[in-house]
Amino acid sequence: MQPIGYGQQTSPNHLDATFAALADPTRRAILARLASGEASVTDLAEPFAMSQPAISKHLKVLERAGLISRGRDAQRRPRRLEPGPLAEANQWLEGYRQFWEARFQRLDALLDELKSGEHPARQKRRRHTKRMNLQTHKGDHR
Amino acid sequence: MQPIGYGQQTSPNHLDATFAALADPTRRAILARLASGEASVTDLAEPFAMSQPAISKHLKVLERAGLISRGRDAQRRPRRLEPGPLAEANQWLEGYRQFWEARFQRLDALLDELKSGEHPARQKRRRHTKRMNLQTHKGDHR
Repeated sequence: MQPIGYGQQTSPNHLDATFAALADPTRRAILARLASGEASVTDLAEPFAMSQPAISKHLKVLERAGLISRGRDAQRRPRRLEPGPLAEANQWLEGYRQFWEARFQRLDALLDELKSGEHPARQKRRRHTKRMNLQTHKGDHR
Repeated sequence: MQPIGYGQQTSPNHLDATFAALADPTRRAILARLASGEASVTDLAEPFAMSQPAISKHLKVLERAGLISRGRDAQRRPRRLEPGPLAEANQWLEGYRQFWEARFQRLDALLDELKSGEHPARQKRRRHTKRMNLQTHKGDHR
């Protein structure tokens, strides 16, 4: 019997392309810029210490992932945010919400225990907090 | 004046590592498996047509991204899901929720218009829907 990777059933290829496209700070910044409106390649390249061909390469990755599209203006060819793949990525992540919420609840519960002094780690924690406060004050006076 | 990439301010490196780790169907499937409980490398390799070293490589990527950790059992070293980076990725995506919701609302509105016959594209759409229905029926009888 040939083993079947459980990957095949649960993971369409466009999630691969979406997550790969999002794994770069410049590409995420381009999406953030397009969230405030359409922009030409020149507009998009401006805030970066990067050549226009380098930006174009990033735009191609975003375009192939379906995260941006080109407007109709033949001269400017403005790029536009396409939110569909982001919704799909979000939907995939939502499947794990219960796990991070459970984690945050445990942290909250621990914090409450520390505050009410029921937890043996309280003394240690209090000293730590005191030190943190001192550091914060030092920062304020700088 | 040196241009400053807007990427630097908004994009901590761990988002890069998280999204890169999620851009692979095997790694997403491993996370899905770990969502139902801790598992050893042997357990994780089992459903895949893949060598244990190949799986170990994927586990290393997930571990470096902070998406999994190793349990204390020295022999099995079971892997455990760490949901923190998923929460961060989710938070980043949530910044774009308004865009996909607006898109879905426009699609809903268009659909309502088509149903009530107010939209000029209705005729065309109706023909298209009819053709789609025929195709569906053909499928049902197969």
